[in-house]
Amino acid sequence: MADIEVGMHFYPHHAVDAPPADLANAAVAHARLVDALGFDQLWTGHHYLTDDQTLQPIPLLGRLAGETRHVRIGAWLILSLGNPVDLAEQLSTLDALSDGRLICGAVMGYRDVEFDSLGIPKRDRATRLEEIVEVLKRLWTQDSVVFEGSHVRLRGVSIHPKPVQKPRPRIWVGANSAPAVRRAARIGDAWAMSPYATIATVREHREVYDHELRALGRDPATVRRPLVRDVYIAPDDASAFAEAERFMAPFYQTYVRWGKEEAMGRGGELSQPFRELARDRFIIGSPSRFVEEIHRYHETVGADVFILQINRPGMPDELVLERTRLLGEAVLPRIR
Amino acid sequence: MADIEVGMHFYPHHAVDAPPADLANAAVAHARLVDALGFDQLWTGHHYLTDDQTLQPIPLLGRLAGETRHVRIGAWLILSLGNPVDLAEQLSTLDALSDGRLICGAVMGYRDVEFDSLGIPKRDRATRLEEIVEVLKRLWTQDSVVFEGSHVRLRGVSIHPKPVQKPRPRIWVGANSAPAVRRAARIGDAWAMSPYATIATVREHREVYDHELRALGRDPATVRRPLVRDVYIAPDDASAFAEAERFMAPFYQTYVRWGKEEAMGRGGELSQPFRELARDRFIIGSPSRFVEEIHRYHETVGADVFILQINRPGMPDELVLERTRLLGEAVLPRIR
Repeated sequence: MADIEVGMHFYPHHAVDAPPADLANAAVAHARLVDALGFDQLWTGHHYLTDDQTLQPIPLLGRLAGETRHVRIGAWLILSLGNPVDLAEQLSTLDALSDGRLICGAVMGYRDVEFDSLGIPKRDRATRLEEIVEVLKRLWTQDSVVFEGSHVRLRGVSIHPKPVQKPRPRIWVGANSAPAVRRAARIGDAWAMSPYATIATVREHREVYDHELRALGRDPATVRRPLVRDVYIAPDDASAFAEAERFMAPFYQTYVRWGKEEAMGRGGELSQPFRELARDRFIIGSPSRFVEEIHRYHETVGADVFILQINRPGMPDELVLERTRLLGEAVLPRIR
Repeated sequence: MADIEVGMHFYPHHAVDAPPADLANAAVAHARLVDALGFDQLWTGHHYLTDDQTLQPIPLLGRLAGETRHVRIGAWLILSLGNPVDLAEQLSTLDALSDGRLICGAVMGYRDVEFDSLGIPKRDRATRLEEIVEVLKRLWTQDSVVFEGSHVRLRGVSIHPKPVQKPRPRIWVGANSAPAVRRAARIGDAWAMSPYATIATVREHREVYDHELRALGRDPATVRRPLVRDVYIAPDDASAFAEAERFMAPFYQTYVRWGKEEAMGRGGELSQPFRELARDRFIIGSPSRFVEEIHRYHETVGADVFILQINRPGMPDELVLERTRLLGEAVLPRIR
């Protein structure tokens, strides 16, 4: 498979009673390993007010820009919750700190507690996402930005520095429903296929996406096809599945509690028994199984960037590193 | 002078047409040197929509947390422009990334373009600053924060991780008018004396501050006394003064254009001829002169933390490093 890229989705969690500096150290160690193993991308997640310890992506990626040399740095950000001028400048600083390695991942958010506590009406999340993406693009590329939106008003302003990357960093939009996928076609440089959707759903959404691209006059053959997947790798399939059930199932129970099913508009889907949940949705197994699965996703949904989430709350840091090494040494060389 | 701390206020600027990665590299080189020379603190500034290139403090300090080992990391932040939940979590991440070296500097902001473009009414800046400082303190220390303010409403939320520092990072409030100094006494762990005020003004404000502390039942003898000063050091007084006039005067013209005089409520003060502007306001001279001046400020206004701004737009990066070295090697050992 020519031109396949593989990224690590990397969202370290520790229990609330662990020393906070340990979480930072674990993140740094993981990022260095991901860079050394030759992964193409390193992505962080984004939530506020989490039940366990997580780190905020912007200061974390500032640190990781200095701890890595080659890997592209991707930030999944709940853009709807942010201020576009602040985001444009912070992300431009990250692009400078990483010498042009930033990718901006744009998601809309769904947790009520985040919208309520940050004082953003949740009903505005889609229009905010659209306006904020537009403002990011303009502030990153134009010298005097005038914008009159429902949420943002700019009267001839500019930021300095602009990003290192020209014309600007890529914006990949995560989406997991037909309207959101159409929006991704309108506003994003690429649509990131959701980790929560099965192959069948992703294929349906891909039809919607490509149709919308063509309607917009864009050639579907020219876009990148990033796919995010929750994965669990182990030396053999049986232990991969046993460990996956132990570490991944509780994580999905958290998502259910956070209201992600309602956000997806497909009630009950994430609260299925683990074996059903995993089918056509997670990649679980030995390195050989991973190679097969990556081929399957490449063929069925056309994915050419695989963003794999390997770490889960409760996984010991040493195990995360060990399995990252396994993925880097036994899978990466066989798929590109 | 026992127990004097010296920090570097460090706000790198490059011209708009310079490569953005150069600014990041200059910042990293400066921070490493500041750390190696044994300065106690490293502070960054904060503005949006600047005329020349500046870096955003939160991602920059994320990077610098990994590039330094000993120095405390101070962020002057225009808190009024931020979202308190976002700030609490980002700063807590910075405290984790620096293993407990964060100091939060809180300022109110004054530039119309920043308030207008970020969509925050400038008339709310004082009440926002007060509420946001209160929310930071609570989110950093409490497990279920309930807050009903004019700008912020929280209904039993908590952040994880809490900061490394217990009970929480210090919050130092910058202020340069009697009402703002009283506010600093109410909300801050310390009041940072303004770089734009002369010794006489600082002394007046110190009376106001100490009076307010006593009214609040706090003992003025127990607080830290940080003083921010714009400085210019050179091997001899004559060249220090000549270079200072070249590099500092344009910087103050920018402040005047930005409306800082109106913000200070003392019209015309910053647009005086440079020699008058400098008197009792800047520290300019040879290392010996610096030692004398630091003694003078220690005696006249009681300062025990000196936060010195050495770099200015237009100064070559190599000159900034050279003069930082001079300050670290020829002044630091003589004042503590």
